[in-house]
Amino acid sequence: MAGAEVTEAWDGLIVGASLATLEGDAGYAAIEDGALGWRGDRITFVGRRRDLADAPDRLAATVVEADGGWITPGLVDCHTHLVFAGDRAGEFEQRLQGVSYEEIARRGGGIRSTVSATRDASEDELLAQSLPRARALVGDGATTLEIKSGYGLDFDNERKMLRVARRIGQSLGVEVRTTFLGAHALPREYLGRADEYIDRVCEWLPPLHAEGLVDAVDAFAERIGFNLAQTRRVFEAARTLGLPVKLHADQLGDGDGAALVAEFGGISADHVEYTSPAGVSAMARAGTVAVLLPGAFHVLRETQLPPLAEFRAQGVPMAVATDCNPGTSPLLSLRQAMQLACTHFRLTPEEALRGATVNAARALGLDDRGALRVGLRADFVHWNIARPAELCYWLGGALARAVHAGGRRLS
Amino acid sequence: MAGAEVTEAWDGLIVGASLATLEGDAGYAAIEDGALGWRGDRITFVGRRRDLADAPDRLAATVVEADGGWITPGLVDCHTHLVFAGDRAGEFEQRLQGVSYEEIARRGGGIRSTVSATRDASEDELLAQSLPRARALVGDGATTLEIKSGYGLDFDNERKMLRVARRIGQSLGVEVRTTFLGAHALPREYLGRADEYIDRVCEWLPPLHAEGLVDAVDAFAERIGFNLAQTRRVFEAARTLGLPVKLHADQLGDGDGAALVAEFGGISADHVEYTSPAGVSAMARAGTVAVLLPGAFHVLRETQLPPLAEFRAQGVPMAVATDCNPGTSPLLSLRQAMQLACTHFRLTPEEALRGATVNAARALGLDDRGALRVGLRADFVHWNIARPAELCYWLGGALARAVHAGGRRLS
Ligand SMILES: [Zn+2]
Ligand SMILES: [Zn+2]
Repeated sequence: MAGAEVTEAWDGLIVGASLATLEGDAGYAAIEDGALGWRGDRITFVGRRRDLADAPDRLAATVVEADGGWITPGLVDCHTHLVFAGDRAGEFEQRLQGVSYEEIARRGGGIRSTVSATRDASEDELLAQSLPRARALVGDGATTLEIKSGYGLDFDNERKMLRVARRIGQSLGVEVRTTFLGAHALPREYLGRADEYIDRVCEWLPPLHAEGLVDAVDAFAERIGFNLAQTRRVFEAARTLGLPVKLHADQLGDGDGAALVAEFGGISADHVEYTSPAGVSAMARAGTVAVLLPGAFHVLRETQLPPLAEFRAQGVPMAVATDCNPGTSPLLSLRQAMQLACTHFRLTPEEALRGATVNAARALGLDDRGALRVGLRADFVHWNIARPAELCYWLGGALARAVHAGGRRLS
Repeated sequence: MAGAEVTEAWDGLIVGASLATLEGDAGYAAIEDGALGWRGDRITFVGRRRDLADAPDRLAATVVEADGGWITPGLVDCHTHLVFAGDRAGEFEQRLQGVSYEEIARRGGGIRSTVSATRDASEDELLAQSLPRARALVGDGATTLEIKSGYGLDFDNERKMLRVARRIGQSLGVEVRTTFLGAHALPREYLGRADEYIDRVCEWLPPLHAEGLVDAVDAFAERIGFNLAQTRRVFEAARTLGLPVKLHADQLGDGDGAALVAEFGGISADHVEYTSPAGVSAMARAGTVAVLLPGAFHVLRETQLPPLAEFRAQGVPMAVATDCNPGTSPLLSLRQAMQLACTHFRLTPEEALRGATVNAARALGLDDRGALRVGLRADFVHWNIARPAELCYWLGGALARAVHAGGRRLS
């Protein structure tokens, strides 16, 4: 929390806001009447206003007198499926009108409809449909987005999705971390030939990676998804390329998914509602982050809580993400995911904020963000709030006064 | 749905959006490739673009080519407590840290802290703290807001709250309907003297009404609030002045509140989770609207559903509102209340939209808004959505492209 040596002018300096630095392992590590300086894309000062070495306007080219509010690290949404085409709100409506899941599937609905629409869309159309969702997340404070493929399910369309994800990052000025999720669902053309499909997924990975389109590899390991042997083959393909792995694990039942991803030193196990104590222990040993996804829990009206007490007891870091997707988690705000995490999972607001910043960064294998510290990326949000808990308290509203990513103001 | 005679130019005309007119008793009453015209504060045309009598720019001074999206009636938030001072997010955090309600009350928390802060705030301070909440509701599509008093609990401070409510309407250009809720809670200084406090409430009402500050009268009739005899006295005072009544009824148990408000021909019974079949019948006979408040249900993790099947069977109109308040329903978006109504109460998106428009207007005794029809107020929202169900589907995001109240564009 000490200032950097002042040898050149900083680009920007905000004074007079409170800072939730999230330094250390617990608490907000708050600084009242704080000052935050940056140069280029890096933080150069985090501390009290009165500890600045000189008058603000002699330290930085641009000085903002905040007059209150709180600055937090930029939010990190570490699990999204926000690149997709088409529309599932109609299904949502049909379900509430009493139409069964089976009937919706018979009518061509469910993930199949998203795969069809995503395949049919050109890259530009897919970008145009997906960009507003990313913009909404950024407008509510997200400065890093993870985006998965998984609605293409063939080489060209998985590649198209990953290219769109990269273009979203360029377009909005935020970092997008791409995850290859070819093993999301079995495409119709491979019905009854899941092992063969996994062969294809493993073949697609190297060229996609060579093109710079893959930062991590994920799979959907559930009884309605792929089995552990198939998941293991995907993970081995990732390991060959030095790519980190993560997993959709134990959402619908304990499938030993968390233990498998931990065995591969995975960066995260996501959902994890049904993860067993042994799975939690394996995650703790491997340093695997538990990514909680309360949006799907809310929308599907689930009742099985993740093993939160075990995660806390064994020191497994917990992250919170939107899971933004058209079927089970239509969330356009990470702050709303934090609200749901507090309401449904009884996370404390501090756990939810750490879950959407420092622990979410860790779930992406990133150690250059998620807190306010000299040398980290200048990703931060200035909020119109009187205390950090308000981020988890309000449903709706526009609380972000300014969002900065890499030192640049986005909104 | 027929156009008005075109004798003069309209002020505005939007073409090329779909319209959810909500005409009739069921369905969206949708019009594709529609046109909506207005002059002054009234709608002058609702229909298909191709049924316009002339070229758009010969009909109206300003023409907007919508290029898609949906137009709905302006949303009506018929139950809010959004005027208050102070901050209860700290209590929200304490509860999640394991502090009991009793301990929070001992520390001076709960509604008592809101009453203290509201009493201590000047009228201008109270306006400054409340206005951002109203602005958030309007930004997400609300063009009519009901605002209750009830945190002053003495003459001067109840009056101050109602004056602030009126000033919010003037400031934002939306209509605010004020509700006197002096019988919200027993102030400390009347402990053990509830009947005497109700005497005061009944005395305060006529001068507040004479000042033009009261559009309706409400009370909190629960086992932790006022009893039916006390509520009846408040209602009789309202009836003497010709003021409509409504009631916080049957939220915590069946207290025969709905039946009482129906007996007085009340415009709404609100919460109504525990209302008995007899109460529902009384509401149906009296034409009393059931105002559903899923925000408190969500935040308090309640499980008792309102008698939705009974309401439907007996034709009791259902409205949906935010209940925006610092203790139990920190909602800054009526759209999010609609989402919660669909998720928790299984309302269909159409019921939720009717509940936030035409039925909410009825819950305020207003018949000049809540649908798109020639002659009604030109209160409408143009949304960036592909179907109306999206309003209930997304959590977070900014879906409103333009909000108009009385023909004037607000945002
Ligand atoms: Zn997912
Ligand atoms: Zn209320």
